[in-house]
Amino acid sequence: MSDIENHRHNDGSIFGAIGDVRIETDSLGQVAVPVDAHWGAQTQRSLANFDIGTETMPEPLVKALGIQKKSAARANMELGVLDAKIGDAIVEAAGEVIDGTLAEQFPLSVWQTGSGTQSNMNANEVIASRANELLTGTRGGKDPVHPNDHCNMGQSSNDTFPTAMHIAAASETIEQLVPALEHLHKALDAKAGAFADIVKIGRTHLQDATPLTLGQEFSGYAKQVEYGIARIENALPRVLELAQGGTAVGTGINSKAGFAEKFAAQVSDMTGHDFVTAPNKFEALAAHDALVELSGALNSVAVSGMKIANDIRLLGSGPRSGLGEISLPANEPGSSIMPGKVNPTQCEALTMVCAQVMGNNTAVSVAGSHGHLELNVFKPVMIYNVLQSIRLLSDAARSFTDNCVMGIEANTDRIDKLMNESLMLVTALNPHIGYDNAAKIAKKAHADGTTLKEAGIELGLLTEEQFAEWIVPSEMIKPRD
Amino acid sequence: MSDIENHRHNDGSIFGAIGDVRIETDSLGQVAVPVDAHWGAQTQRSLANFDIGTETMPEPLVKALGIQKKSAARANMELGVLDAKIGDAIVEAAGEVIDGTLAEQFPLSVWQTGSGTQSNMNANEVIASRANELLTGTRGGKDPVHPNDHCNMGQSSNDTFPTAMHIAAASETIEQLVPALEHLHKALDAKAGAFADIVKIGRTHLQDATPLTLGQEFSGYAKQVEYGIARIENALPRVLELAQGGTAVGTGINSKAGFAEKFAAQVSDMTGHDFVTAPNKFEALAAHDALVELSGALNSVAVSGMKIANDIRLLGSGPRSGLGEISLPANEPGSSIMPGKVNPTQCEALTMVCAQVMGNNTAVSVAGSHGHLELNVFKPVMIYNVLQSIRLLSDAARSFTDNCVMGIEANTDRIDKLMNESLMLVTALNPHIGYDNAAKIAKKAHADGTTLKEAGIELGLLTEEQFAEWIVPSEMIKPRD
Amino acid sequence: MSDIENHRHNDGSIFGAIGDVRIETDSLGQVAVPVDAHWGAQTQRSLANFDIGTETMPEPLVKALGIQKKSAARANMELGVLDAKIGDAIVEAAGEVIDGTLAEQFPLSVWQTGSGTQSNMNANEVIASRANELLTGTRGGKDPVHPNDHCNMGQSSNDTFPTAMHIAAASETIEQLVPALEHLHKALDAKAGAFADIVKIGRTHLQDATPLTLGQEFSGYAKQVEYGIARIENALPRVLELAQGGTAVGTGINSKAGFAEKFAAQVSDMTGHDFVTAPNKFEALAAHDALVELSGALNSVAVSGMKIANDIRLLGSGPRSGLGEISLPANEPGSSIMPGKVNPTQCEALTMVCAQVMGNNTAVSVAGSHGHLELNVFKPVMIYNVLQSIRLLSDAARSFTDNCVMGIEANTDRIDKLMNESLMLVTALNPHIGYDNAAKIAKKAHADGTTLKEAGIELGLLTEEQFAEWIVPSEMIKPRD
Amino acid sequence: MSDIENHRHNDGSIFGAIGDVRIETDSLGQVAVPVDAHWGAQTQRSLANFDIGTETMPEPLVKALGIQKKSAARANMELGVLDAKIGDAIVEAAGEVIDGTLAEQFPLSVWQTGSGTQSNMNANEVIASRANELLTGTRGGKDPVHPNDHCNMGQSSNDTFPTAMHIAAASETIEQLVPALEHLHKALDAKAGAFADIVKIGRTHLQDATPLTLGQEFSGYAKQVEYGIARIENALPRVLELAQGGTAVGTGINSKAGFAEKFAAQVSDMTGHDFVTAPNKFEALAAHDALVELSGALNSVAVSGMKIANDIRLLGSGPRSGLGEISLPANEPGSSIMPGKVNPTQCEALTMVCAQVMGNNTAVSVAGSHGHLELNVFKPVMIYNVLQSIRLLSDAARSFTDNCVMGIEANTDRIDKLMNESLMLVTALNPHIGYDNAAKIAKKAHADGTTLKEAGIELGLLTEEQFAEWIVPSEMIKPRD
Repeated sequence: MSDIENHRHNDGSIFGAIGDVRIETDSLGQVAVPVDAHWGAQTQRSLANFDIGTETMPEPLVKALGIQKKSAARANMELGVLDAKIGDAIVEAAGEVIDGTLAEQFPLSVWQTGSGTQSNMNANEVIASRANELLTGTRGGKDPVHPNDHCNMGQSSNDTFPTAMHIAAASETIEQLVPALEHLHKALDAKAGAFADIVKIGRTHLQDATPLTLGQEFSGYAKQVEYGIARIENALPRVLELAQGGTAVGTGINSKAGFAEKFAAQVSDMTGHDFVTAPNKFEALAAHDALVELSGALNSVAVSGMKIANDIRLLGSGPRSGLGEISLPANEPGSSIMPGKVNPTQCEALTMVCAQVMGNNTAVSVAGSHGHLELNVFKPVMIYNVLQSIRLLSDAARSFTDNCVMGIEANTDRIDKLMNESLMLVTALNPHIGYDNAAKIAKKAHADGTTLKEAGIELGLLTEEQFAEWIVPSEMIKPRD
Repeated sequence: MSDIENHRHNDGSIFGAIGDVRIETDSLGQVAVPVDAHWGAQTQRSLANFDIGTETMPEPLVKALGIQKKSAARANMELGVLDAKIGDAIVEAAGEVIDGTLAEQFPLSVWQTGSGTQSNMNANEVIASRANELLTGTRGGKDPVHPNDHCNMGQSSNDTFPTAMHIAAASETIEQLVPALEHLHKALDAKAGAFADIVKIGRTHLQDATPLTLGQEFSGYAKQVEYGIARIENALPRVLELAQGGTAVGTGINSKAGFAEKFAAQVSDMTGHDFVTAPNKFEALAAHDALVELSGALNSVAVSGMKIANDIRLLGSGPRSGLGEISLPANEPGSSIMPGKVNPTQCEALTMVCAQVMGNNTAVSVAGSHGHLELNVFKPVMIYNVLQSIRLLSDAARSFTDNCVMGIEANTDRIDKLMNESLMLVTALNPHIGYDNAAKIAKKAHADGTTLKEAGIELGLLTEEQFAEWIVPSEMIKPRD
Repeated sequence: MSDIENHRHNDGSIFGAIGDVRIETDSLGQVAVPVDAHWGAQTQRSLANFDIGTETMPEPLVKALGIQKKSAARANMELGVLDAKIGDAIVEAAGEVIDGTLAEQFPLSVWQTGSGTQSNMNANEVIASRANELLTGTRGGKDPVHPNDHCNMGQSSNDTFPTAMHIAAASETIEQLVPALEHLHKALDAKAGAFADIVKIGRTHLQDATPLTLGQEFSGYAKQVEYGIARIENALPRVLELAQGGTAVGTGINSKAGFAEKFAAQVSDMTGHDFVTAPNKFEALAAHDALVELSGALNSVAVSGMKIANDIRLLGSGPRSGLGEISLPANEPGSSIMPGKVNPTQCEALTMVCAQVMGNNTAVSVAGSHGHLELNVFKPVMIYNVLQSIRLLSDAARSFTDNCVMGIEANTDRIDKLMNESLMLVTALNPHIGYDNAAKIAKKAHADGTTLKEAGIELGLLTEEQFAEWIVPSEMIKPRD
Repeated sequence: MSDIENHRHNDGSIFGAIGDVRIETDSLGQVAVPVDAHWGAQTQRSLANFDIGTETMPEPLVKALGIQKKSAARANMELGVLDAKIGDAIVEAAGEVIDGTLAEQFPLSVWQTGSGTQSNMNANEVIASRANELLTGTRGGKDPVHPNDHCNMGQSSNDTFPTAMHIAAASETIEQLVPALEHLHKALDAKAGAFADIVKIGRTHLQDATPLTLGQEFSGYAKQVEYGIARIENALPRVLELAQGGTAVGTGINSKAGFAEKFAAQVSDMTGHDFVTAPNKFEALAAHDALVELSGALNSVAVSGMKIANDIRLLGSGPRSGLGEISLPANEPGSSIMPGKVNPTQCEALTMVCAQVMGNNTAVSVAGSHGHLELNVFKPVMIYNVLQSIRLLSDAARSFTDNCVMGIEANTDRIDKLMNESLMLVTALNPHIGYDNAAKIAKKAHADGTTLKEAGIELGLLTEEQFAEWIVPSEMIKPRD
């Protein structure tokens, strides 16, 4: 089966041995394909013509093509334009694309035709081949099930591929990302509760500031994630719109009236998500602003993730010579040279993911900006980036939650020590001795390396009793009544 | 007096004589400021310390600081903590910031302290000075109105500046950008209607494809803009949240309980927009995800704008050797060397704006990702970019609408000629003679440089009557019944 | 044994029986690893702790780790600190990493510790295991070859991983990208030569302009690629600097004096590229500006690629209703619905790659900006993006050259027709009848739909003979003598 | 006279009376311009047609247009095609553009025609008007000096504007940015020297690591800046190439042979920089990769700046509850609510600038990628961003150097304390008692909150004397001999 191994990376000569290949045809002529492959001529041509990179079409996109073909067959049967025997075989074969059985039959590169035409044909060819096998026992060919006439009936790559893009992006968002972010939110919220009574020094400009509780600090992180979920959910309505029914240029030429609506109902039924047919198919083929919008939401979640993970590693810095206010779980040895070192590795994985998502947002935006007339031809690169961002944020959010957030512990001794040494507690003296006198105390304590109390007494600005009465950190964490 | 020499916005000669300056003080000491300036010591120090770039705080942000100070004074008066005489003077002086009378009193650079502290103090100093002038006839100083104690009462730069950021961004979005995009949408929608019956060649992959109407093509652009408005409006709820009341680190220390809510009500009342107090002040100071989110929405509008303007200049390319399907208004001579040349200059201005907005989104995202603990200190750069993006998209949308879209005319002769020559009309033959025979006709016509009809008849695949019956472009612009 | 279940790259059943695993240890305790794996405890822990995404360490980086370990062993043997028997076994095992024999032993995710520590340990463990197998016949363990003490001798992940990053990035650039771009350059240059005498209409602002030759047009593309190569080569000197010898924080603690220099000599010898030891190891660990710089050069090549491929598909647009000046090779059927359609698919693949590279540049820049103190911990994401960009540009440049550029043909009839119809030839009349009269002719011809000659004669501004003498497109393609 | 009302940069009152305007003409008709303006019809039209944003053409670009016009006039005089009287007047008027005298005569927006045509005409009109005034005493008009025929002789906006872009970008880089970065480098290098003997704790992953000197740490920053200068200088050769001589489409039509070379010599002579004529004018008009390349270099400098400034504020965090190893100058009061607070404001200004430069790089790259055929029409947005980046980096580097770096002081007591408490000194025990025993000591000390010495003695792994002999931080900052 050397053909298979060589796919994408060999020229035509790989097909020298007659026993290993079968001949398939397309409108340009004959093509030898590996005998046990389900794919046909156009897929094979794509392997030869696009020997670029190592990235193949993402698994959720392939699965979405299965959903798309199954839904199209069902809608066409409902409309009475597709024979039931053929339609049922397509439905069964498409089911094997959905469940992953045929995953290895989708070898094409992301870096192909910008409309995803060849991946649509890959799906048509594989499903036709498998359907033919189911009906006749023979793999491949176009009879009785034809890749174009039946699998692609009333469809064009131009509406099929963006439909699969939206099915994949919406499903992954709903099924993977939102639950992962909810998981993270819950963990951060739980820490906010657990740390609600731990008063600590605040820091602005990275400089000592007035106190807050560690719980309040974590409540900010929890809020960021909560809003991130809202941002993503806000982008979904337009991702839930499906281009199917637009066919070649958005007009729906060669499709049957009613197909678009019946198709969307099938997809909704199959996935459990609220997909609808796009109200304007011209927009749906020619622009992918909905994915740019979703990518923008993912970018904002990445920005939040960068802030949260960065803060957590800063608070956990040390153990001796950093801030050291919290301890993170020690999941692995930290250093191949420094014994006993523990590193904030989950923060690092998450922040790397966030940098990637921010870069992907640029790629998606550039790709979205370069469309021409009736068709944007940056479809594969757009969905590749969006699905990578969703996957990485989902996985990293889960990993960060389980392997880091849940195990965070507060180092209360250290927290107390840092807070009590802080000069910014002086802020509480403003109402009693004025900003200028308070500033004098802070400056003297800083210069002398003493406490505020010592400085204040030495300056004659307050007594020990007054200090104890006026400087109460736990009173400094809310507005005054 | 070296500060004075460093003042970037006035030449040295103004301050040549001792009589031209007055002495103001802050906690670091004395500073000479121009005698007729309302600003004080801290503003003057900032001029000396941040001699960076030419970009000063955007006008909508300065106006928002006026709204913020006015609202704070009113809320504090309501709460009974601010004397009415002083409060009223602050309200009046802040009004002059809002209406632009004091615009020249805000000379500070965007590139200052990352919390915007100095611009907050600039506002405090100017309003105190003007209030003192109103009350005593003497400009400057801290009596009876004190910049910190009264103008900044119960406030910190850390909650004040992000509050002004949100007031400015939300107001500009609602008052400028949304109406401008609605204006553009209406014009595109009108063209979609006016061009509804003009059948033309479609183009996918920039290659000839099946027909659609020029109206359908424009309906896609209109839809993009319609969705763009929705994207922006979706981002607003979180921009309408105000940080005010969080003071130094989000806890609200030194503010009066109830201040945050009364303040937000004042701002809503004053602007007519639905501002609310942020439910979590820690998030509101430490992260500016809401602006990252808004910037993401602006980015998606820019991506749409790039597509629309690019298409329009492509459709208008020519006049002889391009597509030439539409004519754009000739607003100015196109070339200093080629007589009679007319260029799609409004498309160019809009696409340049879109490139800028896409870049600004990167700047905002990077800035948003770099916050530390209780305070993000990239506030000025974030609001500078967001306001520039809003302003540019608003102005460019209006200019593009008025100076280009409204004047677009269809060149129906050219459109007809291109459509009728197109080989892709052959698609309509599929149901009658099959995809393969249709392809033969297309290939023969292409090779011979003849029409489809000629090639089809020559190949014996159809008659003249059949061609006339089967190839009806106006039937090819919708699904079949 | 919960680690085992978390192993992402093998299904659980492999480890079902106790006989299928062996026990390895690290400083945190015991870990069960697959019995036939060469990797050890720390690799296995990483599989469990970083179940994020599908992206594993790029193959050139794994190969570079082999080169790094081999070079380190040789340098340590030279310095007399590593026993020859152990050293030779390490060298042999590392050789199998380099030649790909052990490729499957590197299962770790990109999204791990930001220093790449676990991939360094993966290399140490695999090489120690294989070396032990070579020496004792038994896989795994730490005796006689120890992963840390021998494979990692005088090294830290902190200098090892960035060293491998630079080896991989420089080698791929020199061996893959530069030759691929030279290949593209040669093809474009050949077309510039072949098309040198084909005079055609120029287009500025997408509007008809004065003529140039098709060869001149292609010479611009060739120049862009030529400069792209220079840009990339300019970035190399700093990528050829190696961090090795800095160990934990850049000081070189626990390494032997002279190691850094001997190591770099070994790498140069092994790769044939001019690697040197970085003059400042603190910079080399704490910042990866050299990769940001290289990524910037890749970005500029992507920007060029976007322009070139976009132009070529525009010039090839049609065949009937576009510009149609050139024909691109028809490599595959263009449409699943439109018979006979041929699309500029190689242009699409290349432009998608360029969008990705532009996005990767943002990811690399963000990652590079987020370093802290002695160590940038975004190493894996940086090298992942840089290597992807290099690979994609290399492959796409080759594919575009072979499958598109080389087969481009000029449609001279179409080119002549468009040029002769153009109104911008009127520019040549300026010296004879003045800009204003020339403009009158152009405007009249445009309004009437006639030729310039007809309009000029009708206006009485020139004769047929004068037109023939003055309007000579082939004279309009250079400065006047 | 509606044009006048649209004039954005002057208030309406200037044009209140008919006597306040004069009539100028262009090929589209008559236009009223302010009577005391030097600009003419096309500038006035642009003010009306492009009422977008507040950004006018950057001052260095306007100055470069002056240099360009002066050089063109001189070259044309040399070639004998421009009358000396007219040419000399142009040279004198252009000189007033260069020296800033006529700065207010350049009111046009960045967001205009993408070729910069109107700013080229603005220069032609202003210079012609001023030259006419010099020769006749009357401002405006086209006689004896004509904006097109004389000021724009042998030129097109298409080669003129990119020429001015390159003159401005290269000059600003050489005259402003490089010296500013050298100034910063010198200051960092001086600190590296001054701090050469201060041994401190290193930090990797923000966690305590082995020691280095504060001087070594700063040497890394110095190296980053040194390389940044090299990166920028590497980009210059292609920015020093001038498009002039290409005229409309790169062919040089309507220019005199030899003009390009004589022009470049004039510019070099006038600026003192090594400008040359671009070897391929097609590339020089149609693509602006040289600016993308330069922007990439600026981006890498911004990434460095982000790292350096971020580190410095981290090292200076505190004063009590942060790292506190260094003290930054206190340039202004840090807080309007917290007395005595000092913030790292120069770090904040610089990092904000760096975020902007990173965003600008995206804008420049997107703009560079969108060119079409013979002309890139994103010229103004590209040069606007490049010049902003250069200006901001220059100013911020100087401000950061003078107001922060030069005043940095080491807090040696704090540095000693943190280093001596650090558990990572244990690394030095590896050669004496092994990694595993060393790890035991570190873990015990961490768990008990004791020193390494106490833990080591308690575990019986070393004696007090051995500890003193083996743990010598000042020996841990270099390789062992």
